[in-house]
Amino acid sequence: MIPYELMSELSMKTPSKIVLLVMDGLGGLPRPDTGLTELATATKPNLDALARESICGLSIPIAPGITPGSGPAHLALFGYDPLKCYVGRGVLSALGIGFPLEPTDLAVRGNLATVNDEGAVVDRRAGRISTEKNRQIVALLRQIKIPGVEIFVETESMHRIVIIFRGPNLSERVTDTDPQQTGVPPLPATALEPSAQHTADVVNEFLTAARQLLKGYQPANAILLRGFAKYPHLPQFGELYKLRAAAVATYPMYRGLGRLVGMDVLKTGEKFADEIATVRQNWADYDFFYIHFKYTDTTGEDGDFTAKVLAIEEVDHSLPDLLALGPDVIAVTGDHSTPSILRAHSWNPVPYMLRSRYEISDSVEQFTERACQRGTLGRFPALQSMLMLMANALKLEKYGA
Amino acid sequence: MIPYELMSELSMKTPSKIVLLVMDGLGGLPRPDTGLTELATATKPNLDALARESICGLSIPIAPGITPGSGPAHLALFGYDPLKCYVGRGVLSALGIGFPLEPTDLAVRGNLATVNDEGAVVDRRAGRISTEKNRQIVALLRQIKIPGVEIFVETESMHRIVIIFRGPNLSERVTDTDPQQTGVPPLPATALEPSAQHTADVVNEFLTAARQLLKGYQPANAILLRGFAKYPHLPQFGELYKLRAAAVATYPMYRGLGRLVGMDVLKTGEKFADEIATVRQNWADYDFFYIHFKYTDTTGEDGDFTAKVLAIEEVDHSLPDLLALGPDVIAVTGDHSTPSILRAHSWNPVPYMLRSRYEISDSVEQFTERACQRGTLGRFPALQSMLMLMANALKLEKYGA
Repeated sequence: MIPYELMSELSMKTPSKIVLLVMDGLGGLPRPDTGLTELATATKPNLDALARESICGLSIPIAPGITPGSGPAHLALFGYDPLKCYVGRGVLSALGIGFPLEPTDLAVRGNLATVNDEGAVVDRRAGRISTEKNRQIVALLRQIKIPGVEIFVETESMHRIVIIFRGPNLSERVTDTDPQQTGVPPLPATALEPSAQHTADVVNEFLTAARQLLKGYQPANAILLRGFAKYPHLPQFGELYKLRAAAVATYPMYRGLGRLVGMDVLKTGEKFADEIATVRQNWADYDFFYIHFKYTDTTGEDGDFTAKVLAIEEVDHSLPDLLALGPDVIAVTGDHSTPSILRAHSWNPVPYMLRSRYEISDSVEQFTERACQRGTLGRFPALQSMLMLMANALKLEKYGA
Repeated sequence: MIPYELMSELSMKTPSKIVLLVMDGLGGLPRPDTGLTELATATKPNLDALARESICGLSIPIAPGITPGSGPAHLALFGYDPLKCYVGRGVLSALGIGFPLEPTDLAVRGNLATVNDEGAVVDRRAGRISTEKNRQIVALLRQIKIPGVEIFVETESMHRIVIIFRGPNLSERVTDTDPQQTGVPPLPATALEPSAQHTADVVNEFLTAARQLLKGYQPANAILLRGFAKYPHLPQFGELYKLRAAAVATYPMYRGLGRLVGMDVLKTGEKFADEIATVRQNWADYDFFYIHFKYTDTTGEDGDFTAKVLAIEEVDHSLPDLLALGPDVIAVTGDHSTPSILRAHSWNPVPYMLRSRYEISDSVEQFTERACQRGTLGRFPALQSMLMLMANALKLEKYGA
């Protein structure tokens, strides 16, 4: 895409309003017995009507064939090249639990694991212990103190924890301690460059203390760390696009992703209708609204086709209230596909529609994967979305004379 | 796209003939009362017949969402990446008035402006004075002499002038003197690198002399400079494509853009029929004709929908005379869109058609924005056009064994 400097140069502040509605994991695949995807099964007159007024296509989150996590998929929709701007696992986990990460913090994801008497890993996930048990162990680990470094140990869920190290001169250039296989002992943290030696020492001191504390605990008697990461410095929405941007999301991860790029995170409720109400209450104060709807993804990951259909219908039901606010430009898409039959994120391109009075709508009559195949946008990189939204809001100056 | 070296290596001289017809600002948007664009409104049987024999699509001049100026938009159609090859404002202005720029010249665009008694800018455009008044002031400014540098001061129109500095060691790495706001004095020219100090000194000496000369003149008593630029060194059509190329254009800017890439600029008349006559007279001498038709853009910028429709019909009327010459390959497109309802250039993709006996025509039946949405080329970068033209003229060797 175009360089950040050029975007900052071309973007301008105007009163027009943009809405980006992300239905997480939107894209699906046909259920063998009906041949219809979740979108094609849902009764969704409002989404279909919007498709008829829009330019449509299928967005490719990262690259054809690449199944994205939520982090990179959202970065692309926000206009940051997900192959260049990497948000590390540790940071994503911290965002995911809503931890108030500071710019110099070092975050890492941990697995509670089982080692045998010889110290070799026998189960990398400690039998997938309960979140309740996880909390008890985390309470224990919080007793560990290392001079000069503040340590936050947090429960994610089941065997997963997040550790945040806060202090001067912490580096993400440290190797994982998770050996990624059983039968061998956990690895020590190793500095990848001399300036990271202090960090490696701190991490190893923490792990030694943890091993003492967890001795005898079964099955979670060890910790495996993976993905040391610091907060990435992304150009913020305010400078890059000159947008006052708001994030409306119920899940911490997406609130964190919005915060990462400089959005104000608005307090909202659990339902899509609550999110729309939040947008309505704050309509005057922002010119960009990122609205995240989670349940199309969770139901897809559960493999619950019918529940995903209902989630789509929930959005459709409240869509008119969103449109009634009169956004100048609105795009509806997903960050990636989560087909119920795969019970997981997938590489499949994602239905996308953009409505603006300055685009010539195509012949797409329904908001489905198959109909969007015939949209004028074709298969296109999700990374282009912000450019199209900005242009249609008349927020970009001419390039060159 | 492919690197210049590879293009030079693959391109070969053959007798086949290519025509690139650029209808400036061709793409439009529907008029709300009819739902039809300028192209969809025009009666244009010849363009539509050509579309039926062509492969069609929508070309993206720079990147989705980017509204291009004429310079970058033409560079893309000529096969130069417009995000890498930048033609500065000063050079475009000099080209625009037909000034015979030499490779070492430094050109800059100037605004005649108004400053108050304290020296602060009160009007960056001197009340948009008449071109006649502009000429009088330019005559005055031509008295300024600086040893070792030849200075050309030229009227563009209204408050706009172009200044060309000719002499050894002039650099474009000098800051603008236009503060881009009122209430503050004009800025001094500042060298952005040590080797540009001489240039900054020359420019500031010129501005001091101009201030003396214009003292008491109202409202144009100051000059604000913007866009110092030297002639960019682009690989020339002759080497890159092995083409003897001719530019047929009525407006100086486009004649200049043709000259910039090594085309011969042919003398022609005001009407499209005159341009076709010029092509006919020179048919034997060239194997590439770039024909520029301006009035689809000027009418769009005027917001005159009907006049743009008529401009399209003027091209349609003479198109058979062009086709009668028997080009082996012909492409018809615009450099960018200029929808009448926006009264300005826009980011919207541009209808494109290419006819060659070596392409399989698609199902597009009309040369309109909506019909071209269904063309086989889809949305594609304008930068690819030269490659397709060269290939279809059988002027490219095989890549690799």
